[in-house]
Amino acid sequence: VSAPSGVRAPRAEGSPRTAGPQSLDELETPAAVVDPRLVAANARRAAEYARAHDLAWRPHTKSHKSRAVGRIQLEGGARGLTVATPREAEVMADVTDDVLLAYPPVGESKVARAVRVAGDVRLTVALDSEAALEALAAAAARQGVTVGVLVEMDVGMRRVGVQSAEEVRALAGRARALDGVEYRGVAFYPGHIRVHQDEQEQPLAELSARIGRLLDVLGSADLAPAVVSGGSTPTFWRSHEVVGVTEVRAGTLIFNDREQVAMGAADWADCAYSVLATVVSTAVAGQAVVDAGSKALSKEGRGAGGTFGALLDRPEVTVSGLSEEHGILDLSATSWRPTVGERVRIVPNHVCVSANLQDALWAWDGDHLERWEQEARGRGPWLPAPAR
Amino acid sequence: VSAPSGVRAPRAEGSPRTAGPQSLDELETPAAVVDPRLVAANARRAAEYARAHDLAWRPHTKSHKSRAVGRIQLEGGARGLTVATPREAEVMADVTDDVLLAYPPVGESKVARAVRVAGDVRLTVALDSEAALEALAAAAARQGVTVGVLVEMDVGMRRVGVQSAEEVRALAGRARALDGVEYRGVAFYPGHIRVHQDEQEQPLAELSARIGRLLDVLGSADLAPAVVSGGSTPTFWRSHEVVGVTEVRAGTLIFNDREQVAMGAADWADCAYSVLATVVSTAVAGQAVVDAGSKALSKEGRGAGGTFGALLDRPEVTVSGLSEEHGILDLSATSWRPTVGERVRIVPNHVCVSANLQDALWAWDGDHLERWEQEARGRGPWLPAPAR
Repeated sequence: VSAPSGVRAPRAEGSPRTAGPQSLDELETPAAVVDPRLVAANARRAAEYARAHDLAWRPHTKSHKSRAVGRIQLEGGARGLTVATPREAEVMADVTDDVLLAYPPVGESKVARAVRVAGDVRLTVALDSEAALEALAAAAARQGVTVGVLVEMDVGMRRVGVQSAEEVRALAGRARALDGVEYRGVAFYPGHIRVHQDEQEQPLAELSARIGRLLDVLGSADLAPAVVSGGSTPTFWRSHEVVGVTEVRAGTLIFNDREQVAMGAADWADCAYSVLATVVSTAVAGQAVVDAGSKALSKEGRGAGGTFGALLDRPEVTVSGLSEEHGILDLSATSWRPTVGERVRIVPNHVCVSANLQDALWAWDGDHLERWEQEARGRGPWLPAPAR
Repeated sequence: VSAPSGVRAPRAEGSPRTAGPQSLDELETPAAVVDPRLVAANARRAAEYARAHDLAWRPHTKSHKSRAVGRIQLEGGARGLTVATPREAEVMADVTDDVLLAYPPVGESKVARAVRVAGDVRLTVALDSEAALEALAAAAARQGVTVGVLVEMDVGMRRVGVQSAEEVRALAGRARALDGVEYRGVAFYPGHIRVHQDEQEQPLAELSARIGRLLDVLGSADLAPAVVSGGSTPTFWRSHEVVGVTEVRAGTLIFNDREQVAMGAADWADCAYSVLATVVSTAVAGQAVVDAGSKALSKEGRGAGGTFGALLDRPEVTVSGLSEEHGILDLSATSWRPTVGERVRIVPNHVCVSANLQDALWAWDGDHLERWEQEARGRGPWLPAPAR
């Protein structure tokens, strides 16, 4: 098998395009709007940074769940794609021949789906338990395919990952011994490090020392990892400060959001995603109510001052409250007084969960409107179309 | 036109049923599971309470977005259904002939969709602005249909609703004067009143006094409302304490959730909805990680102690953290130590936003598994099936 290039030729899908809306004005709200020029620019900049530091950028596609955006990431210079669910793996295997499932497939059906993807493209799985490893290896061996394995280590976030270099070594050794899987390296996720909140380099230096020790332990055991997969959007531009890292998975930066801007990981002008909404009520003084609520923006506060979003063109206007279908625009910092029917675009706190709430993404370059499906939303495979 | 009965004969849908899983064990996780026996019991109890107090129960269907659950509500004794979006209106018009759109349709496409529904079933719309009223009336008149109108008044939540009885009177008078619409009454939503947090009857007494004054003002202007639509799940069982109310829209009680239990509006045993999840990691001591994250449960804290859910069968085990595909089970209050692969059922804080994240609801009565589509999820009408 020759080394994968990362990009896969698009399948002929005979996409049945409905007539549909031609401009933002014709979109019914709420609707997710992305600027394809910013998406492409964000992808290029990330890939350039990675190239400059001899890193592979393997972006996580959970932020968009769309083949179209995956293709832009690859065309911009991404080396393969990262996914979290079987559905994402299946869909992204249509656009790249090199998929990292950064999540252990646990349970018969998930293992079977992962193995099926591995029969089609180069698949690597990150995991942290012998239980997950053994089940995956057994299923892969039965099907005569090979699944790559990264052993995940916890570097301080305390979510998943084995707790010590010695445990990594043990699981890596077990992976090497089993049929059906191939030990490829290690993975970690520094999701607890918020660069902006702690300007000193200590957290990254500590992380780097920890990875260095891990590499020593593995090297001594003849288990030197081919892949050291790390990276998050908040720490992305400083990924090169962590010794030994070979690839970074940061995905949110394809769109950016209010939280990334608050952390200093992006500028407001880099925000490529917003939710188009319509003012539906101005009955209560000092505020306007729009039709984008928690079912379009998601109610995640996430260190953005207790508010849930801000207007793309008027960032001083924040979303101070959310019900399921209502967003409350706080007008206290503006003299602007919208009327019922007026439209706004809202940048959410956390774009990945907002994008997951949409029927589709609408790409608008100021001139041309295109619908980008989010084929990897939902769980599948039992996803018959709604009866209607 | 004869008075609607509320229930509409089901359409023949020729539902193409896939083989699919036959039991909870065969479901891939995360998956939303509902107990149809509890759903039916919750519906019956609500309808019985309403009947005993001469109120109509017109439940909000945003909590489930499913024709199947709408039918159970109607069979249990609901009188028509409430919706928030055009999509919900279109879908629920298949199961009832009497729909309340408790949300102003603002924008050409939403108005057109509302008017189309009004050509098919009895439709009433709650609104709070002349702009929304005039656009709706004009479109309805053009199509030769009549849309009922409730004028919404703010009773303290400060979300939507005109601010005084006099404003209600003015808008009601305008509705009566316009072709295409029929003034039917008033609506309010006491979403700010949390019964359990304030056991004294003052909030409800104040609300009742406020509605009483409103009825006086309207009565004096020959605008006595045929419908006074109110009610929320937290205040549901005390709706009869508010003078003049004719219908209550409470919908969450069909499932209940952790927040309703915390407020004393439901018992844990009334919780009909949970998310089935699989343990995927036990690498970090004191916790277990499941595959239900914020994309299955939603990250809404909502006064439930800063945690995001609890196990149905072990409510002392809470979800202490959520990433998009990871839920952290806090094991500090239990001696139970789950292993990778073990399955749990999690009751979320806010069921309506969790249900909105699912591909479908799985009805499990302990013996038989049935898939209930959520046809009203998403926005439509441009909803072609995913290409794959």
